[in-house]
Amino acid sequence: MAIKQTIEEVLEFIPKFDDNGLIPAIAQDAKTGQILMAAFMNREALDLTIQTGYATYFSRARRKLWKKGEESGHLQKVEQILVDCDQDCLILKVTVDTGQCHAGYQSCFYRALKKGRSKELEFIAEKVYDPQKIYKK
Amino acid sequence: MAIKQTIEEVLEFIPKFDDNGLIPAIAQDAKTGQILMAAFMNREALDLTIQTGYATYFSRARRKLWKKGEESGHLQKVEQILVDCDQDCLILKVTVDTGQCHAGYQSCFYRALKKGRSKELEFIAEKVYDPQKIYKK
Repeated sequence: MAIKQTIEEVLEFIPKFDDNGLIPAIAQDAKTGQILMAAFMNREALDLTIQTGYATYFSRARRKLWKKGEESGHLQKVEQILVDCDQDCLILKVTVDTGQCHAGYQSCFYRALKKGRSKELEFIAEKVYDPQKIYKK
Repeated sequence: MAIKQTIEEVLEFIPKFDDNGLIPAIAQDAKTGQILMAAFMNREALDLTIQTGYATYFSRARRKLWKKGEESGHLQKVEQILVDCDQDCLILKVTVDTGQCHAGYQSCFYRALKKGRSKELEFIAEKVYDPQKIYKK
């Protein structure tokens, strides 16, 4: 209990990485409050994010550092980094241009469960760009 | 590539649980857009959340289902469930009363990294209740 209280009250930033060395990070539009995406960071990605002021994540699929927007140009300028009570999750308050999701939407969260259903989604957003024009094979 | 496009475009809700059977879920205030907390759900927690309309998570520390507010009374009424492009992260848009974090704050994200610092946090919120009065040992 003593350790838990310490983590909740301390003003030292001691982010807790999981067994894979990762911490979840949520990118939230600093102006609108819209949640844009959720991803993971390792220690190096977090350090780079703090040092450069632009969001860098760790891609679990590709097993490497991934500066958001390095291919698409849609960078995330980090205005503020928040940490939760247990210091095991981060929020990045970011300034962005249009089209943060690689599927063509402003946010990765462009679908919602239909009211009263348990398996059926509906689109809740429209595409803001054509991903095929941005991401060339 | 074919499978990835399918997951991004389908209107079937097929949430992807990780190797531990968990999916991250972010609770966001439906009215204000404030991110309140981030936690994990297993299949059963997600089913219960959909069925009951109130958020149930899976506590990794206690290895059991955890209906948010079961002890404190601060339930989360789920207005909408969003899923991201890869269907491996959820947002719960929730209606809540005051004091969602067990440390006494409205949100678990009550600290932020100080501008220009890499290890120093500052409080960005005030407590909205006294947790010692709510959580009895």
